[in-house]
Amino acid sequence: MKLKDFKVEQWMNENEGQAKYNLTDTCASSFSLQELLDMGELDPSSILLDYGEITGKKSLRQEILNLYQGKDPDQITTTNGCLEANTLVMDTLLEPQDHVITCVPGYQQFVSYPESLGCTVSLVHLDLAKDWSCSLDDFKNQITENTKLVILNNPNNPTGTLFLLPFLEELIAVCRKKGIYILCDEVYRDPEHLESISDLYERGISTSSLSKLFGLAGLRLGWVKGPRDVIQKINARRDYVMISTGELRDALGMIALQNKEKILQRTRTILQTNKGFLRSWLRAHPDFSCVIPKEGTVAFLQIHGMKDSESMAKRLLKEKGIFFVPGSCFDKEGYMRLGLGQDPENFQAGLKELALFLKSVKPL
Amino acid sequence: MKLKDFKVEQWMNENEGQAKYNLTDTCASSFSLQELLDMGELDPSSILLDYGEITGKKSLRQEILNLYQGKDPDQITTTNGCLEANTLVMDTLLEPQDHVITCVPGYQQFVSYPESLGCTVSLVHLDLAKDWSCSLDDFKNQITENTKLVILNNPNNPTGTLFLLPFLEELIAVCRKKGIYILCDEVYRDPEHLESISDLYERGISTSSLSKLFGLAGLRLGWVKGPRDVIQKINARRDYVMISTGELRDALGMIALQNKEKILQRTRTILQTNKGFLRSWLRAHPDFSCVIPKEGTVAFLQIHGMKDSESMAKRLLKEKGIFFVPGSCFDKEGYMRLGLGQDPENFQAGLKELALFLKSVKPL
Repeated sequence: MKLKDFKVEQWMNENEGQAKYNLTDTCASSFSLQELLDMGELDPSSILLDYGEITGKKSLRQEILNLYQGKDPDQITTTNGCLEANTLVMDTLLEPQDHVITCVPGYQQFVSYPESLGCTVSLVHLDLAKDWSCSLDDFKNQITENTKLVILNNPNNPTGTLFLLPFLEELIAVCRKKGIYILCDEVYRDPEHLESISDLYERGISTSSLSKLFGLAGLRLGWVKGPRDVIQKINARRDYVMISTGELRDALGMIALQNKEKILQRTRTILQTNKGFLRSWLRAHPDFSCVIPKEGTVAFLQIHGMKDSESMAKRLLKEKGIFFVPGSCFDKEGYMRLGLGQDPENFQAGLKELALFLKSVKPL
Repeated sequence: MKLKDFKVEQWMNENEGQAKYNLTDTCASSFSLQELLDMGELDPSSILLDYGEITGKKSLRQEILNLYQGKDPDQITTTNGCLEANTLVMDTLLEPQDHVITCVPGYQQFVSYPESLGCTVSLVHLDLAKDWSCSLDDFKNQITENTKLVILNNPNNPTGTLFLLPFLEELIAVCRKKGIYILCDEVYRDPEHLESISDLYERGISTSSLSKLFGLAGLRLGWVKGPRDVIQKINARRDYVMISTGELRDALGMIALQNKEKILQRTRTILQTNKGFLRSWLRAHPDFSCVIPKEGTVAFLQIHGMKDSESMAKRLLKEKGIFFVPGSCFDKEGYMRLGLGQDPENFQAGLKELALFLKSVKPL
């Protein structure tokens, strides 16, 4: 099946290794294996390196449920990260000729992947003038007879857009009438602060992982929470693409989830510190502007006057070791995707270097 | 996309947990995490739980290459087990209307998955009368203008069929003329004993993992070895379905591969012991017959007079704790899939119990 290159991922793959200041990473600063092991009790003799429980250890699925209101472990299945969770949902629900609605600027998976399955994808344009939000009508106007799925990313990568309860309730009411599913990638969701679509809507499917707010991308442990019949179909498909996540990762994931208060608090502190610095930095540097998001680990930094974000990102990396994903990877010129979850000292130093460098290269 | 239930995997998922005698597992007896750690040096402080090198740590890919003749690490990409490796290859190469040829009885993934992509699949029937082999003409006769891919499993699950060098060379000559790719699932291949298609053919793609002969299914670490342009396309697709396998599994996989002589020797010893017992057990029990395979961990055990393998497998599990995948899961009645890689004591006790039980329930 033909599939377009995933621009943001390819950019990350090719360039990330060279960064001195990684100002674009979407994860909270990563833990080492030792740091994770120190949070719990893992007896390596008791971990058999066999397939383990196929759809994820039941105790793990129970623990995942603590991030939601629902309490049925058969509404959960585990995956290799949130990315695979999304793909599994789309592969399971979508047929050629189905119609999908999603937002841009956004995560390219939600456009190019359904297109590769033969679906038509309509785009809702998030509006900078409204702090990167959109209206209910923007969705309603796109609905056709064939609309099967609305895909949200809440909070949204790269804009940080939030879809809050009142909006979600209205959107659900519209979708319910037409039998439309809502897939919501909630990988940047803080469970203390934001509702999950899977707790609100009987056709709502939530995906997430331990990669972003938990700083544990290396576990490659994600999940889907959704209606039982959808989960059952996903499990049937999992037999063809992954079988299981394995007992080791299930056990390590369990430690992370059992320590979620501590881990999420660390992330919140990093985000608060970095957003505080960003706020004052923006005041001091009027050539930049940014909607600082209330939630999530990413924002879309506007650099006034910048025409060619890709060339600029390459120069910044080569000359100053400052690593960004350029707006061009999101089909949007004039921006850089800014990550807010990395080490504050490095974040601040990187932004300072960025401002100095841009001053030196005027006009852009 | 519509996809048939994967019969053998669903059977395993639903029933495996209840087994006293697991006579059907395709893996060599699994190692514990502690046993694997004892074989190498892993410093948990040095393992950052971040995405790691996206297509697999380069040193790991180098180590994987030691299982092959080829020496180019860019011919390798890592995956979540061999199953995902196969899916990635099929998703990457196949378009609707393409034609695929594979063998039955075989692994259902090679029939149902391409069908789900809109491909036509022709079946080569392995012949019990010829010790589950087939002829070159069986493949040649199926080739059409649209044939894009021949899929082999070498050794084959469940029959243990081997495709040896002279046959492969002839098949390659036929495929080369037509530009047909050969995907060979080599997850049961002992690298000391069998050629890899990827070392023989410029359009040959080999998939494998640490699950079967290495007894490390819980790592969920597999790979594809193939032409650089195919690997490049697979890597572009990986950005949509997995990103990476992560530094932890790459490091654990490295330990396993660095100890491959020891690990594979253990597996060879188990297989030799179990096959020796099976040979004498078959002589003593003429109601059973089996082509004992030269390589691999599986065989297809025939039970003379058995009409309904599924009912019998259920009875054996419920009444005696003897666990088999019935031939019905491979669309072939009268057989049970026999695993040869599990603990010899348990294997022998299980076969003894099986013979006793079947004697008691005559006629079948």
